[in-house]
Parts: sequence; structure tokens; C-alpha cells
Amino acid sequence: MLSNQLHNGLETAKLLWSRIPNSEDGEVDGGSLLRNSNRNTVESLDYEVIENYAYREEQAQRGKLYVGYYVAVKWFLALLTGIGTGLAAVFINISVENFAGWKFALTFSIIQRSYFAGFVIYVLINLILVFSSVYIVTHFAPAAAGSGIPEIKGYLNGLDIHGILLFRTLIGKIFGSIGSVGGGLALGKEGPLVHTGACIASLLGQGGSSKYHLSSRWLQVFKSDRDRRDLVTCGCAAGVAAAFRAPVGGVLFALEEVTSWWRSQLMWRVFFTSAIVAVVVRTAMGWCKSGKCGHFGSGGFIIWDTSDGQEDYSFEELLPMAVIGVIGGLLGALFNQLTFHITYWRRNYLHKKGNRVKIIEACLISVITSAISFGLPLLRKCNPCPESDHDSGIECPRPPGMYGNYVNFYCGKDKEYNDLATIFFNTQDDAIRNLFSAKTIHEFSAQSLLTFLVMFYTLAVVTFGTAVPAGQFVPGIMIGSTYGRLVGMFVVNFYKNLNVEEGTYALLGAASFLGGSMRMTVSLCVIMVEITNNLKLLPLIMLVLLISKAVGDAFNEGFYEQQARLKGIALLESRPKYQMRNMMAKEVCRNQKVVSFPRIVKVADAVSILQSNLHNGFPVIDHVRNGETLVIGLVLRSHLLVLLQSKVDFQHSPLPCDPAGVSKSIRHNFSEFVKPVSSKGISIEDIHLSSDDLEMYIDLAPVLNPSPYVVPEDMSLTKVYNLFRQLGLRHIFVVPRASRVVGMITREDLLIEDSEDPASVELHSTSVRGHRQYSMISRNVDVERPLLNGLLLQDHMLG
Amino acid sequence: MLSNQLHNGLETAKLLWSRIPNSEDGEVDGGSLLRNSNRNTVESLDYEVIENYAYREEQAQRGKLYVGYYVAVKWFLALLTGIGTGLAAVFINISVENFAGWKFALTFSIIQRSYFAGFVIYVLINLILVFSSVYIVTHFAPAAAGSGIPEIKGYLNGLDIHGILLFRTLIGKIFGSIGSVGGGLALGKEGPLVHTGACIASLLGQGGSSKYHLSSRWLQVFKSDRDRRDLVTCGCAAGVAAAFRAPVGGVLFALEEVTSWWRSQLMWRVFFTSAIVAVVVRTAMGWCKSGKCGHFGSGGFIIWDTSDGQEDYSFEELLPMAVIGVIGGLLGALFNQLTFHITYWRRNYLHKKGNRVKIIEACLISVITSAISFGLPLLRKCNPCPESDHDSGIECPRPPGMYGNYVNFYCGKDKEYNDLATIFFNTQDDAIRNLFSAKTIHEFSAQSLLTFLVMFYTLAVVTFGTAVPAGQFVPGIMIGSTYGRLVGMFVVNFYKNLNVEEGTYALLGAASFLGGSMRMTVSLCVIMVEITNNLKLLPLIMLVLLISKAVGDAFNEGFYEQQARLKGIALLESRPKYQMRNMMAKEVCRNQKVVSFPRIVKVADAVSILQSNLHNGFPVIDHVRNGETLVIGLVLRSHLLVLLQSKVDFQHSPLPCDPAGVSKSIRHNFSEFVKPVSSKGISIEDIHLSSDDLEMYIDLAPVLNPSPYVVPEDMSLTKVYNLFRQLGLRHIFVVPRASRVVGMITREDLLIEDSEDPASVELHSTSVRGHRQYSMISRNVDVERPLLNGLLLQDHMLG
Repeated sequence: MLSNQLHNGLETAKLLWSRIPNSEDGEVDGGSLLRNSNRNTVESLDYEVIENYAYREEQAQRGKLYVGYYVAVKWFLALLTGIGTGLAAVFINISVENFAGWKFALTFSIIQRSYFAGFVIYVLINLILVFSSVYIVTHFAPAAAGSGIPEIKGYLNGLDIHGILLFRTLIGKIFGSIGSVGGGLALGKEGPLVHTGACIASLLGQGGSSKYHLSSRWLQVFKSDRDRRDLVTCGCAAGVAAAFRAPVGGVLFALEEVTSWWRSQLMWRVFFTSAIVAVVVRTAMGWCKSGKCGHFGSGGFIIWDTSDGQEDYSFEELLPMAVIGVIGGLLGALFNQLTFHITYWRRNYLHKKGNRVKIIEACLISVITSAISFGLPLLRKCNPCPESDHDSGIECPRPPGMYGNYVNFYCGKDKEYNDLATIFFNTQDDAIRNLFSAKTIHEFSAQSLLTFLVMFYTLAVVTFGTAVPAGQFVPGIMIGSTYGRLVGMFVVNFYKNLNVEEGTYALLGAASFLGGSMRMTVSLCVIMVEITNNLKLLPLIMLVLLISKAVGDAFNEGFYEQQARLKGIALLESRPKYQMRNMMAKEVCRNQKVVSFPRIVKVADAVSILQSNLHNGFPVIDHVRNGETLVIGLVLRSHLLVLLQSKVDFQHSPLPCDPAGVSKSIRHNFSEFVKPVSSKGISIEDIHLSSDDLEMYIDLAPVLNPSPYVVPEDMSLTKVYNLFRQLGLRHIFVVPRASRVVGMITREDLLIEDSEDPASVELHSTSVRGHRQYSMISRNVDVERPLLNGLLLQDHMLG
Repeated sequence: MLSNQLHNGLETAKLLWSRIPNSEDGEVDGGSLLRNSNRNTVESLDYEVIENYAYREEQAQRGKLYVGYYVAVKWFLALLTGIGTGLAAVFINISVENFAGWKFALTFSIIQRSYFAGFVIYVLINLILVFSSVYIVTHFAPAAAGSGIPEIKGYLNGLDIHGILLFRTLIGKIFGSIGSVGGGLALGKEGPLVHTGACIASLLGQGGSSKYHLSSRWLQVFKSDRDRRDLVTCGCAAGVAAAFRAPVGGVLFALEEVTSWWRSQLMWRVFFTSAIVAVVVRTAMGWCKSGKCGHFGSGGFIIWDTSDGQEDYSFEELLPMAVIGVIGGLLGALFNQLTFHITYWRRNYLHKKGNRVKIIEACLISVITSAISFGLPLLRKCNPCPESDHDSGIECPRPPGMYGNYVNFYCGKDKEYNDLATIFFNTQDDAIRNLFSAKTIHEFSAQSLLTFLVMFYTLAVVTFGTAVPAGQFVPGIMIGSTYGRLVGMFVVNFYKNLNVEEGTYALLGAASFLGGSMRMTVSLCVIMVEITNNLKLLPLIMLVLLISKAVGDAFNEGFYEQQARLKGIALLESRPKYQMRNMMAKEVCRNQKVVSFPRIVKVADAVSILQSNLHNGFPVIDHVRNGETLVIGLVLRSHLLVLLQSKVDFQHSPLPCDPAGVSKSIRHNFSEFVKPVSSKGISIEDIHLSSDDLEMYIDLAPVLNPSPYVVPEDMSLTKVYNLFRQLGLRHIFVVPRASRVVGMITREDLLIEDSEDPASVELHSTSVRGHRQYSMISRNVDVERPLLNGLLLQDHMLG
């Protein structure tokens, strides 16, 4: 009788545990995760999905309809993420193009009369745009500064950095990047768009933002961090797909660069999201074609069509291409190193002085950038236009108010152009289009390209790290295509008989710099192909990327990894560290004092344990007969805090909770255990208990995870690492070696035929079961469980 | 003294274990893996890499130079794989194109005089080619039949199917596919090329084929199945890259379709291999341009350039495109179902009757295919040529001996063409090129396309499963592009004002059929884009694939999954089965009798244990004081068999092996434990022992894996499955719940800074260690080890 009741009690335990969403929060425990800064803002997420049978049992009871609804919501949210990200990208692009278009149109019209007045207006407009951006970021959404990709990478690796996925961050990112990109700074809008996509996905995944009353109960079906993570992955892909109009590149970027765990089922959904983005963006651009979007025209999205460029390449060209790869690796590694040091200095000295310094810094950089981009072309002599070639459709000088090559700027005659102004005094998109352009051999002089390379490289290094949203893709393409075009010029002069286009080399240079800095491979390759709409150069891009990545890797880590490290985002890499080969599991936890809970804990004890340390998870150990103990599960700090705060589970007796009250013991709604992303959750200091409360007891059985993963104490740490990393765990118990083996599980044991009919399973496992509803009870009766027997006996003794 | 000796003994155990390559072979144990057939030909592979510290210690002792050499060899082998696969693809393509070219040239020249003589010659040439193919396959390389992709997928999932990666299979695959494709059967050469790439990779990975004296000791550095698997993955990607000249598609195919485990480091190497293939193929094609390769010209590789096709699409077109997606899903699912049943029938009835039946079957199908492809166009009336359009460069009728549209076949007048012959009486590559071609509106009549669709669909269904190498990509593209073009014709007629090309719909149809049959997404999308060299249609291809895959999934599994199931290749999917939610770990192994070994086992006992069951792995359990036991590790059947065969480890006393002989106890060369892929290894029946031998003992400590992964007995089976599947394990011990927790491992414990200086590690783990060479011993002294203490006491008792 009593035993049956206890069975029920423990089953309830599992049942409730399973209903508690798998989100863990609170302070980082014990370790020295963050040596630099912001210790309190980084939390760990738990991506392992607790799939114990009770959870599934319950899901099954809720019916197929619910599962279908759940799947439908997943796809619907992916759809919404795609649409949202696509619209955000369109909005950003239209705004940026219009601001930049007005700016250049106004400046060009004023310099007809006075270059000085034009300069002042140009500087002022840029300053206003940059100021608005930095003001929004510093005063409203501090987490919107920078690229955001390292933070998203950290989130998908299992770290929740405070604030990165909030609604205000989304708003700050969108408007901030309009200001910073429209203001002509040496940065791009692609990283911010990835962050934007991730924010949209995360907000959708948690059913809106409760703070701004934008939440919907109807969408709050995602209970686990894993579902949210999957949606955020979709959001990242959508961001890239929207930024570059490269849907396949987006999928690969999410796969290669951002996610830490990847399931093939997810690929399908990510692919879908990217396709939606492609459709949304294309529709919007079609709508804008009729001139409804102001200055936003063909120049909006970064598509640099080079499909009319070089058709073929010869073997002699492989050498200069390899040179480009090496240059890309060197300059990319240097870029990473310089930005690393400057960002380090900024974080630790400059930006500690407050928001005013951040604003002044950004405004100063804006003025310098404006001055250089306006002033340097003034110093450059104009070149006469080349003999016009009507077939190519390229006019020289370009008509006023249009996009195109051959900008007439501070030139004496009408038929002249300023090659430095063509790239410098222009939007970055147009500059890249000019650098990539074919049939414009000898448009740029080596001197102009070198000047631009040095100046822009310096500006990009200095600008990254200011408190504005900043992407590194477009600046990287600018830098790379400049030296690529430079190499191309030499190739054209040297191999005179080849049909070489300088634009091809500019493209390869862009690929090489991005490869040398960001160290991506397949995704970058596909993105480059998609944005240039030219498949013929694919093998060459691959070659250049291989070389530049290899050269870069010889010096330092990739750009995002370095930035993540600076920000205290400690990523768990997919490969275990070298030192782990020589270590055992128990060595890493030797200094730890294992703090464990008994099954029935006094409230006062629980509070003092929680106050005495920062651990996030505690083993629950129960005493059985002859003083022996048994590990019955893992309880999380966050769940304990919920129990302590709500007080409904407090009981007067130190006995297991009333077995008759199986249904009563599930007193909590799921959502009480769900914590929104990027929030801090409850802290032990927030909980106030009376002295009566402190004298009461809590039965932890209903909230514990009954089977966390375990490893033997002398297992090699590399094996432990693989287990931890591959399954996305957060806690592993290190236990002594077992005394016996109950069974062996091999491949064949896990090859259960999928069928709706439970009879086949029973055939396989030969377990005696009744209907699904009664399977738990019958299993308990049927299966010999040392754990339960132990608890049983203890219970008898207590009784 | 004695305790120290024992420490040394057990350390030696770990040392030797670690040097034993992680290959497991032998019969499938226990389960009912293969219900249909060939029970003895499927083995399991173990992809988990045993990284216990002793192994790493030893690696460290071997020096950085060796590690560098190892990495260099990995890349060098990837290079060789790329070159080899590229050359094989070029060879196959040149051969096929030449055979087919001669065949059609001869036939066309003969039918100028007599259609009957032409028919006979045509049938005979096809028959001879098909006969040579089926003869090679049946008599020389039975594993070369079929596509090979399901088998490779199984291999990469952890199953070693006997014979699939042998040198003879490689040869059979290459020559067999030349015969079958050249012979005009309704099958392609792409699946076989993937298999070819995998074979080349596998042979390189094991240092050549010892049977044909083609092995090289120098290359035999790959000791573990995992390294080989990685190389085989590269080989698969290389095969796709070579077959379609689609390097990025190859990488994605390997990622999405073939591999079960993927590491981001591997992507980089796979990418490299694909790039090499692209360079090799391009070089060979450049070399062939000057006419050195006979009939092999632009028609050789399947590149159907549609970049001059439709530029844009309108919203009205989305409906017919969705219709194509639905048709693709339906026809693809039907194709899978039909081939499944026919292949089932073939395997279980027809092909059991021996090789002669297989040869007759293939020859019969060849004759029927030839008769239909020659005869049906004869029944079709010729159409007058359209008014010639000199801009498009398409002549009507095509000049004799050339590739192109508008084939003049059995026509009364010169200015006529036979539309059915244009697709049917042609090589498949040319037929697809004609179907995809733009600017040829109304070339085909609906009647011809329908006739062709029905006939070719039937032929493709019937042909797949004969004993010749057979790919499904090109037939799939044929079928899909036929109904796609059919839909395109209706669109052209219906939406008269749109600038619609029928070829665009043919392309979408091809994508939809492949999506509906193979259920690939991203890789297929990229492959389609790469082979048609047209990025503009990417969003449309994505859309069509989404629909066709969704429709197909509603009916059955993907083509390769079904074929794998038929062949008894039981793939462990990435997602656990539904039933596992309700099961516990011990339930799946309840019927098992756990057969365990003691540490010191009598030879006679070992033999009888190995004879009495088919298990591949055995727990090793040692007795400690008061009769308690301790699980000290896992020993593999294959390693036991090596010990029994070599006899050098036999000892007279039942005591642990002589501790003084630490170095002596490593009596085995690694390579003794390495089993070549696709071989059967040693069987217990092969081992003959004298009665003296049977009385001796073996100490298993040196060969056991001291820390296999363990799970508590009441863990949910889904969690166990995830552990097993994600880490690529082969054995998991199910053990009772632990009585205490030694420590907890969390994220922070695993964030060890990577540094060359071991001091930092010591700081972290605060272990007292001497030099690396002595660390093992010092650790043993330093660390309290219940295991060793137990063994120690037992030892004292025995002594």
C-alpha cells in the first residue's frame, strides 16, 4: 500500500520534472568564467532536452493534436521570422539608401557653388546621423553596439548574455545601423542584420516582449531553450539571407559559423526561413522598382553582379591569385590583431568613462571619416575620361544623381573624373560595385588605390568597437577588393595577352580578406558567389579562401572568436583542448565541494545552502537502509528558487509528500519555471520567508531531473568533454565506478522499428504492459527497481 | 612494492589499450538487425575515438613531429582522393561519351541506307556494352551493383557492409558504369561516382589494397575507423563534385545526405577535396578541348547551362511552379514505392537464382530499352522546322554528328525534325540539354513528352535494381524535366504575355522530381544551381523543393533510406524513435544475459565464452575484497581473438602479468589490431589451440578500454539514444544508480585555456605533477583510486 503510494509519488516527481521547462539561469557557478568583466551578465543555457519517459507520456496524453499544433507553430514562427527579418532588412536598406542618397545629392548640388559649404553640409549630415545612432545605442540599447555575431554565437553555444535578445536591442540595432551606415562610417549593416534576425526570432520564440506589452499567450508554446535556440538559428540565417540576398549562403553561415549544435531536421526549417526572406526581399524590391522608395533603387541591396565579367582564366593567373590569398591572410590576421587590441583598450579604459565619452568618440570618428573621404579626393588630380565604349553602357563622367563609375569631383573639365572620389566619396555599396566592375580597365590609378587602402583600413580598424551597430562584411569587401584590384592592375600590365578583368581580382581580393579575417569557408564562398551572381569563379574563390584562411590561422584566431573572447563570451569549442588528454574527470572537480540536497529538505537548510554558494545544480541524495546512499537526481537552483518563492509546496512533515495527492502535487504552471531569454530570473536575495516558513519542509522529488548523465571518476576528460559538448549538457555527475553491469546497449538494441502500434515495441522489449495510460504503473510493479526498494524500506523505517 | 607494480600493470593496460586501434569487427551480436538477408555481411564500426589520457600521453611522447606528420598525411590523402576521383570521373566520362558517340554516329550513318540494319547495330552495341557491365559486376565485383550511396551512407552511419569498399569494387564500379551508361540504359553515372570516390578514399585511408599488392606502408597511418570515415566523407563529396562539376554541392551533399557525424574541422578538408576535384576536372576538360579525347567534348560533363534563359519571373508563375512541386512529390514518392517493391522482389526471388539470371535480366532490359528508344520515334511523325532564328545559334535540323536540338530521324524532308527522337534517341545528357534549352518554344509536342515520360519512367523503375552500377540523378532529371517542360508548354499557352521559357519549367521539374524522390534540400538546390549555372532561379528551386519534399514525405521515406532498408542496412537516425520516450535503458537489454570476463581469464574459458555467443564486447569485472565486484572496463571480441591467435600473451599463472615487464607486455604491434575495411577479420573458428594452451591464462588489463560510457539503468531511452548516436558509440554499459557523487562537471570546469605550458593546467586542476613523462605515476600516487585499492587488496590476498 505504502509502496504503491511511494511509487506514485516518485512518478509524479518525474512527471512534474518533465513538465518544467529546461531553462536554467542564475549566476555562473564556481568557475572563473569571466576574468575580464561583466560577470553578472553571462548565464549558461541548457540545450539538452530532458526526454524522460514521463514527459513523453504526458505529451502523448495531451494528444497528437497538440504535437501537430506544436510542429505547426514551429513552422509558423519560422515563417514569421523570415518575413520579419526580410521586412527589417528592406526597411534598413531603404532608409540607408535614402539618407545617403539625399546626402550625396545635396552635397553635389552645393559643391557646384562652393566646395567649402558642401564640405560643411556633408560633415554635418554625417555627424547628425552618427550622433543619433550612438545616442540610441548608449541611452536606449547598449547591447546593440558592435556586430552582435559574437554574442549570438555565444547564445547558440549555450551562454545567455544579458540584454542581447531584448526588444529594445532590436529597435536599437535597426535604427542604430541606419544612422551609422547612413552616416558613412567605415562599417556595414550585415552583422547587425544577423543580430536583428536573431532578436526577431527570439522575441517570437518567447511570444513577444512582455515589458512592452507585445506578448501573445497564443505563441508561448516554446518551453525549452532548445526550441528557442533553433528559432534563433533560423533568424541568423534569415539575417544573412536578407543582408546579402543570399539564401543558401545564409543557411551555410548559420551552419558553419554560428551554431554549435546542428540537427539535420533543423536544416530544413532554416532553409525554409531563408527562402521566405528571399521572396519577401524580392517582392519589396519589385514594389520599389516603380520609384516609390525614393533613392532606393538597384543600389540598395548589396548585389554586385559580375556575371558579365571575366569568362575564363588561365593557369598563369593562379600565381597572382595565390598572392592575393596570402595578402588576404596577412592583412586579415593583422586586422583581427589590431581590432583586438583597440577593442581591449576601449573596453577597459575608454568606455569605462561613461556614455559621454562614447558619444564624443563616435562623433569624432564621424568627422574624421567625413573629412578624409571628402578631403583626400580634393588633393587628387582628375584623369581624362577614357574613350567611351557604347557597348559597355558605362558613361564617363557619370550623369549627376546617378550611381556609376567615373565620378566627376573637383575636376577642371567636364570630360574628366576623379578616381579616388569614385571609391571614397560614395556609398560603400557603389564603391564596391565600381571596384568589381568589368570593362573599366585602368579606371583607377595604383596611387589612388593604395591611398584608399591605407586610409580605409585604418578607419575600419578604428571605427570597429565604437558604440554603434557595426558589421565587418562590407568594410572587409572594400579593403579586399582594393588590393585585389591593385594586383589585378599588375596582372593586366604583366600578362598582356590574357583576357583579364581587374574586377575579377577585386572580387577575389574581397574573398581573401574576409577569409583571412573571419576564417569562414563554404558559407563565405557561397555568399560571394550569390552576391556577385557569378558561378564561374567558384573554384578560384575556393582556392583563394583556402590560402587566406590557412595563412590567417597561422597567426591568430578568427575575428568573431577574438571578439567573443574579449567580451567574456567563453565558447566551448567543438574539439577538446590538448591538455584534457592527460586529465581525468575527477581532476577538474577536485577542488569543488559537492553540495547535495536530501530528498526532503528543511526550508531553512535550503535557503542557507543556496546562499552559501553560487552553484546552479545540486545532486539530490537519499539515504537508504544501513546508512547507504543513492543519488536520485539533479535539482536546479532556479527551480528551487521558484519553489521557495511560491511556497505552495511547503509541508509540515519531513515525510515524502502525500502520495494521494498526485495531481495536487503538480501545483506549478509550466510558465513559472520558464525564464525569458536575456532576463536575470529570481535571485535568492529576492525571496523573503517568515520564520514559520523556514521551519517547514519541501519534498524535492517532484522537481528533480531523475537521470542526469553520469561519468566514472577516472574517465578521460576528453571523453567527458565530448559528452558535454555534443549533447549540450550543463551538468554531469562524476560518480565512482560501478560494481556491476546490468546490461549492454548496442546498436541493435536501439534499432526499434517505428510504428504506431505499441505491440511491436512490447515484442522487442518484451515488457508486460497494459494500455499506454497505465504503462507507468504497470512498469513500476513489473520492474525491479533498487532505487524504489531503497526508498521504500526507508519509508517503512520512518513510518 | 606490490602495489606499485600493480599500478604499473594497470597503466600498461591503458597504454596498450590506447594503442589498439578502435576498429571492431565480427558478427553482429544478439539483435535482429537483418531480418531479410546477408546477415554475415554487415558489421558495425565504432566511430568513437578512445581518447584516454594514456593514448594522448603516448602521442605526446611520440613528439609534435609525428602529430604534424599525421595532419600532413590527412591533407595529402584528401588531395590524392580529390585527384583520384577527378581522374576517375574524367575517365568514365570520356569513355561513355566515346562509346555513345561512336554508337550514334555508326547508327546514323547506317540508317541512311537501312533503318533495320541501323536498329540491329544499335541494339547489338548496347547489348554488348550492357553485357560487359553486368558480367563484370556479377563475376568480379558483386558489391558494385546499384547506386552505392545507401551502402556508403550505412558505412558512414557505422555499418561496414562486406565488400563495398574493396579495390575490386572500385574497378567494377568504374568499368561497369561505363558499360551501363554507355549502353543507353535508363540510369546515370552519378551515384556510382560517389561510390567510386568513397572507394578511392577508403583504399587510400588503409594504405592501398593488400590483396593486389598495391599497398604502401608509408600511408598506413590511419589507425582508427574515424579517420577513415572522414576520408570517405571527403571521397563522397569529391564524387558529387566530379559528377556534377559542383564543388559546393558536393560538400553539401556529403553534409546533408551522407554523413551521420559532422565536425566543422572536417568541412574544411571536404571543401579542399572538392576544390581539387574542380581543378582536376577543369584541367582535363581544357586538355580535351583540342580534340584529343574523341567524341568527348562539351557534352561530356553534365553541365546544362541555362544562364541565357529566363531572366525574371512573375507572381502568376508561382502557381504552375507549385503544381510542378506537387507533381514532383507524387511521382517521386511513387517512384520510391515502385522501386522498393521491385527491388524487394528481385532480391528475394529473381536474384537468388544465380548470376545467369542477373545477366539475362540486364540484357533483356537493354534490348527492350534499345527497341523502345529506336522504335517509338519511328512511329512519330516529323514536324517541320521552325523559322530559323540566327541569333539563338540553334540550327534545325542539327548538323549530322553534332549535339543539339532538332534531330532529323526518319523524316521525309530535310527541313523536318523528330521531336521524340530529339529526347529519346540521344544520350541522356543531350536529351536533358534539349529539354532545358531556352528559345526553343514549341519544339516538343505534348504527345511526345507524355509518351516519353511514361516510357522512360517505366524503364527507370524497371532498370534500377539490375546488377549493374546505376545512379538515379540523371534519370530523375530526365523524368522531371519532361513533365516540367509539359507544364511549361501550358504556361506558355496560358499566360501569353509573359516572357516565359519552357526550359525554366523543365529545370524546376527536374528539381521537383529529385526533391520528391531523394528528399534532399540544400545540397540538391546548390547542385541544380551549379549544373545549370543560373543563380536567378534559386528562390524558385527552393520553393519547388520545399513543396515536393513535403508532398513526398507524406507518403514514404526517401529513396536512399528505402533502398538501405531493403539491403538490410539499418541506419541509426539522428532522432530517437517515438517509442523510446516510454522506455528505460534497462528495458532494451532485459533479455540479454550479460556475459562478462574476469580480469585474468583462463584461455579455455575465454574460448568457450566466445563460442557461446556472438557479442562483440564484454564487460570485464574484477572481484575485490568482501566479494564485491568492480567493473574495470570493456574488452572487444576482435581484440580477444587477436590475443588468442597470437598466443604471446598467454601466461601460466592466474596472477596479473609481470609488472616488471611493462614494456614487454606491449607485445603487439598496432597493426595487428587494425582490420581493413570490408574484410571479415578473424573468427573464433579460425583459431586452433592446443590443450596446453587452453590451460593457460590471459591478463586482459592491457587490452581493455578502461572507461566506456555508462548510463544509469532507469535513464530514459531517448537520452541513451542521443548519447549513443551523437558520440558514435558501439557499447554502453547500463549500470545501477550511483551511491554518491564525487563531483559535478559544469561548463566552467571545461573551459581550460589552451596553452603549451602545462603549468596553467596544474593551476587549474591543482594536481601535483612532475614532468609529463612521470605524470602518470605521480598521478597514481597522488590520487586516491578505489579501483586500484580494490585490486591491490585482492592482490595481497592472492599473494
